[in-house]
Amino acid sequence: MSSLQEGDLILRGTRAPSRLQAARGTEKSAQGAEKPFQQVMDVSTGDPHRAGMKPVSFVRQVLAACVYPKLLDEKSLPLDARQRANTLLGVCSGRSVGSYSATAYGIPYVCKSVTEFIMRRDGGVSSNPEDIVISSGSTKTLLMVLHLMASGEGETRTGVLTPMPCPHTLPTLLNMAGLTLVPYQLLEDQGWAVELDELHRALRTTRGHCSPRAIYISNPGNPTGHVQDRKSIEEVIRFAATEGLVLLADEVYQDSVYGQGKESLSYKRVLFEMGKEYSKKVELVSFHSLSSACMGECGLRGAYMEAVNLDPAVMKYLRDAQAPSSPPVLPQLALEVMVNPPTPEDPSYKTYSQEILHSMTTLSQNAQRACEFLNDLSGIKCQPARGGIFLFPRLHLPPQMVEEAKMLGVEADVLYCQRLLEEEGVRLGAGCENGQVDPNFHIRLCVLAPSDTLDEILARLHSFHLRLLERFP
Amino acid sequence: MSSLQEGDLILRGTRAPSRLQAARGTEKSAQGAEKPFQQVMDVSTGDPHRAGMKPVSFVRQVLAACVYPKLLDEKSLPLDARQRANTLLGVCSGRSVGSYSATAYGIPYVCKSVTEFIMRRDGGVSSNPEDIVISSGSTKTLLMVLHLMASGEGETRTGVLTPMPCPHTLPTLLNMAGLTLVPYQLLEDQGWAVELDELHRALRTTRGHCSPRAIYISNPGNPTGHVQDRKSIEEVIRFAATEGLVLLADEVYQDSVYGQGKESLSYKRVLFEMGKEYSKKVELVSFHSLSSACMGECGLRGAYMEAVNLDPAVMKYLRDAQAPSSPPVLPQLALEVMVNPPTPEDPSYKTYSQEILHSMTTLSQNAQRACEFLNDLSGIKCQPARGGIFLFPRLHLPPQMVEEAKMLGVEADVLYCQRLLEEEGVRLGAGCENGQVDPNFHIRLCVLAPSDTLDEILARLHSFHLRLLERFP
Ligand SMILES: Cc1ncc(COP(=O)(O)O)c(C=O)c1O
Ligand SMILES: Cc1ncc(COP(=O)(O)O)c(C=O)c1O
Repeated sequence: MSSLQEGDLILRGTRAPSRLQAARGTEKSAQGAEKPFQQVMDVSTGDPHRAGMKPVSFVRQVLAACVYPKLLDEKSLPLDARQRANTLLGVCSGRSVGSYSATAYGIPYVCKSVTEFIMRRDGGVSSNPEDIVISSGSTKTLLMVLHLMASGEGETRTGVLTPMPCPHTLPTLLNMAGLTLVPYQLLEDQGWAVELDELHRALRTTRGHCSPRAIYISNPGNPTGHVQDRKSIEEVIRFAATEGLVLLADEVYQDSVYGQGKESLSYKRVLFEMGKEYSKKVELVSFHSLSSACMGECGLRGAYMEAVNLDPAVMKYLRDAQAPSSPPVLPQLALEVMVNPPTPEDPSYKTYSQEILHSMTTLSQNAQRACEFLNDLSGIKCQPARGGIFLFPRLHLPPQMVEEAKMLGVEADVLYCQRLLEEEGVRLGAGCENGQVDPNFHIRLCVLAPSDTLDEILARLHSFHLRLLERFP
Repeated sequence: MSSLQEGDLILRGTRAPSRLQAARGTEKSAQGAEKPFQQVMDVSTGDPHRAGMKPVSFVRQVLAACVYPKLLDEKSLPLDARQRANTLLGVCSGRSVGSYSATAYGIPYVCKSVTEFIMRRDGGVSSNPEDIVISSGSTKTLLMVLHLMASGEGETRTGVLTPMPCPHTLPTLLNMAGLTLVPYQLLEDQGWAVELDELHRALRTTRGHCSPRAIYISNPGNPTGHVQDRKSIEEVIRFAATEGLVLLADEVYQDSVYGQGKESLSYKRVLFEMGKEYSKKVELVSFHSLSSACMGECGLRGAYMEAVNLDPAVMKYLRDAQAPSSPPVLPQLALEVMVNPPTPEDPSYKTYSQEILHSMTTLSQNAQRACEFLNDLSGIKCQPARGGIFLFPRLHLPPQMVEEAKMLGVEADVLYCQRLLEEEGVRLGAGCENGQVDPNFHIRLCVLAPSDTLDEILARLHSFHLRLLERFP
């Protein structure tokens, strides 16, 4: 892909080269040609901490005291963090995060906290601990469900309706599970909205090819930034109900809806507010994760799924699927903190809410700023994002570059990203990884990064893009 | 199985009922019949922290500072723990344990530390980071390898030679991967030694039934406590070489060899000391884990495997197998500490070595004491353990009890364990779970527990066993 080293994939969010950066620069020039940048900045995936975003202090304080219980008596940690740690240690066997998780589907206490969060979020719609499965990352919970749906060959092979563009990991997951990807195109001109006619069209294409059993939705959209309104969600639910499809609602970015007038609405809530005709019938699995925008705790690897209306035998399978292994304990405790954060009467509330506000403000301002910036560049058109942490601008590339890519045997958006990486040390994602097969090219970037980091990335992208236009006038 | 609740599976290692225990006792009597015990003591699996063993302080101090980097400046943590945490944060993207692991097979720095540990352990035999794969638990690394070996149906279905008894999770793993378990019997009378003739016999039985491709060994033995000497390991290696079998060496308890005159010898070392004829040829995968005896960090979920002589394509598959997900970061950092503990010049060395010594002494004394105690009970015969954390005593059960079990449709060892749990609140493992199919019955117990906890368990077992003998004289 490129001549850069693994170790280069560190990004610091500061323009002044640190001593380490300077050392790396030297190393590089000793090894080969000098690069015009000190360090690779990678915003191709959703990994906010790598980009320099800070963790939520309360989460880390609680985890630290769980890991090293001597800290329970240290005044340096806030009282409520220590109390929470004490409570959480109480649900670990032997009061240690080093004991196996009580069950393969998650610590019952944490499952219960998750359901309480869901009920608060959804205006009281009930939620049962038996419907929760905790795992190490939503990539894994999703894969568990996909595996379960796999069956048949040829015409009878399970198909999953998949948005185009979709999260860049999804095609791999479908493939691993042995499922057929059935693409439905999102409407770029309408900010990547889901369109009912397109769902019907996509379904018709499956005739004689595969047996569609589920529809996957990412809302808020990865990588689109689209946020569905109630009407759109209702349409998808009715569609799933009529066509007998399982709804796979990837709601990992439910905590990051910032578009004006937009609200975060879960599929579960809308489903239950549509009445028993739907709420008793439609099979829904909703995914959430520590890799959410506000937490950004991707490396901890913790996630849950909530299942609605699944067959009890299927549910049993999902709850046993991780046995005889079990999910790590610490991420489960972090999940508990995520779904049950400090409340106004807690000492940590002020810091907690300031930190969340800061990261949400950074995110929404970055999204807007980056979108405007990109739209000012000739040959780039970016839909504004209303939620989530990505932008997915369209590239109108010079025909000569498209030709060159063809000759090199790569997609033109891949070539664009490769050149950008080599020349400017900025790693973006190529749209084709998100399953895009239309004649337009796209790039993907995560905008949840400190604002000066984003500035630097945009500045480098700017230089590169202008040079490109000069090269191919 | 029993009328006990999940929440009961907490064990405190003290005879005097704590306030919590007293509360639980009351709860129970309110819910149903009063039990003659306050709390269930579970030593059916290898989960030392659940049994009340303490974590190694240095490991937890480093992790705490990695989780909450403000602690890097706190004098309350030892300097070397903070320095280590600082180093480890340096190998995390964005200096956060919340960033995704750099690669799906593990952080390169940690892989490197693992190889340095292996080289020190094996007297300099070389070890390459490219041969290491890190995952969340050796149950998972093992399953990855098993999955890879699966192929064929009927006669051509992959078979794995499996010791009887074997770790109680292994039959499930083989089944999940679609492999045929080919049993070879360990010699109970010789302390559960591996016998070459028996390996040949087992292999002969596969003709026309399956296609044997690997042999699994647990050394030190789970649940047997057997430790192979060099000669025995050489025999197995020669057997694997001649028969073209992959060697799967589960060496999770390599840190706990305590039998007099016994040494901890890795399969890799012996293989390389047998000369190139073997070391260039035999395919070996060795497993190690944070769930080892001295660490006991089962709940963190961290493990590595080292592969020797595997086909590069196979190795590539194993390194990619976890993508697009990746192993949690924190357990990888804990692994680094496990393989690279404090050395004599470090401030934490004294505490570290005292803690390790304490747990090793507890383990070896417990193993010996429990073995003698069990052998004093009429109808129980226990082989002495030389390593590992389990004992696997044989039960000579009264014929009437065997009859009763038959009528109830359960194995007699299962019935024994059920009754023991119901009457005394002690959970042991039934030998049949370890794959034992011979006419003898066994029970499995983990002896890595605080010594007063073990006392209590043995006392309860004693009362139960005597009552049993009275009931069936
Ligand atoms: C829509 C979506 N789902 C799932 C994931 C993966 O989450 P996890 O880190 O929990 O596996 C991501 C992360 O990028 C995502 O964007
Ligand atoms: C022989 C053996 N291998 C593997 C394991 C499981 O290790 P992990 O917790 O790393 O999955 C155990 C734990 O009991 C074991 O005894």
